[in-house]
Amino acid sequence: MTAAIEKETLLYTGKAKEMYTTNDPEILWVEYLDQATALNGKRKVPIDQKGRLNNRISSLIFKDLAAHGIPNHFIDQPTDYVQLVKRVTMIPLETVVRNAASGSFERRFAVAHLTKFPEPVLEFFYKSDALDDPFINDSQIHALNIATPEVVAEIKRQALQVNQRLTTIFAAMGVQLVDFKIEFGLTAAGDVLLADEISPDSCRLVDLKTGASLDKDVFRKNLGDLTSVYQEVLARLVTVEED
Amino acid sequence: MTAAIEKETLLYTGKAKEMYTTNDPEILWVEYLDQATALNGKRKVPIDQKGRLNNRISSLIFKDLAAHGIPNHFIDQPTDYVQLVKRVTMIPLETVVRNAASGSFERRFAVAHLTKFPEPVLEFFYKSDALDDPFINDSQIHALNIATPEVVAEIKRQALQVNQRLTTIFAAMGVQLVDFKIEFGLTAAGDVLLADEISPDSCRLVDLKTGASLDKDVFRKNLGDLTSVYQEVLARLVTVEED
Repeated sequence: MTAAIEKETLLYTGKAKEMYTTNDPEILWVEYLDQATALNGKRKVPIDQKGRLNNRISSLIFKDLAAHGIPNHFIDQPTDYVQLVKRVTMIPLETVVRNAASGSFERRFAVAHLTKFPEPVLEFFYKSDALDDPFINDSQIHALNIATPEVVAEIKRQALQVNQRLTTIFAAMGVQLVDFKIEFGLTAAGDVLLADEISPDSCRLVDLKTGASLDKDVFRKNLGDLTSVYQEVLARLVTVEED
Repeated sequence: MTAAIEKETLLYTGKAKEMYTTNDPEILWVEYLDQATALNGKRKVPIDQKGRLNNRISSLIFKDLAAHGIPNHFIDQPTDYVQLVKRVTMIPLETVVRNAASGSFERRFAVAHLTKFPEPVLEFFYKSDALDDPFINDSQIHALNIATPEVVAEIKRQALQVNQRLTTIFAAMGVQLVDFKIEFGLTAAGDVLLADEISPDSCRLVDLKTGASLDKDVFRKNLGDLTSVYQEVLARLVTVEED
């Protein structure tokens, strides 16, 4: 089906991915890059193998989610660094789901690191480089015409579904899913569809045995070699997904 | 009814009010102070008559709201500087309702000053001096056990009711209600009850004819004499409330 897909024009360069149009207007070509950024892109460093590892991890997770009733933009992973995805109109919101306190939540509310929440916490951030991705609530989302209340409700519903399935996958890998960030788009038919990527770049993961970070925090906090950490995550994921 | 109420122990000193217990455990004694603060209390200045003016304005507004189906903690205004209120357990949230962009909203989202919203915007801030009153969403409120989803829903319902009535009152005074901050408490029976104060300290008010600020921004931005501005607001309010 996707053999005849050809890469065309560069559409967008993200922190660790490039998006291209293809000869099929419904399909985008995503290239995962061997690089990591921190401080909202201000620090950028080449990381050996990272693009390949994230592409594989993200592809396996998207396939798993689809198999568990959570549709998403993933179509195929034709090569190590390339993913083909359904073209959607991205909704400019980062959706964050938290199972325990960490990062900005921990700082904002002075809660002890990894305090577990009775229910998952949902947060939105408005994707705007100029505004530095501000935290935003539902009411402000509507006022600024970023998404309708119906779309926001659907995003929340899907985000909690994703959280349930991801928590199960990572638990089977011996990993605690502390929090993660996902993004959604709208299809031509107006449906909310999970898009972007799900990888250790966008999840906060803690080894259940050792308490070690298994995600981009290793890079953010200079805790060690990112490549070997991502290799470990992929190795464990492959075991689970092949069961 | 309230003639026998006597002031007892100082319970709490706010930015422009002192709260005392009374000989009736159900009733608190509020003293409005002749002072204004800015920068979350870091700047504090004596302002002639301000306590008396805010007490009168707040009392008139609370009476009006009660008469229009919005119960609140106001009982009586026995003297110029004193208000008697029902004792409630305060919910540590500031509820902000915005009809047009100003202040932190304007800065956060780079929206033009006084851009009108299609619907009122609702925001919560977690009252915590140590945390500098952070902006908080519903999900975080539940996770931190600050209020139940039912209480939050009731706060929103009442806040929008208050907005409707206040907008009508101020329009009749030739004033645009840009935004305001209110606080709620829980009664012994568990009901959500409007409390704190409603005055030019907590509302952003713009003269419909001149565009001049008629609120504490006059103090925050050193725009002129605060006492005469609050006198003007009271004078117009008295005209409306005596109709």
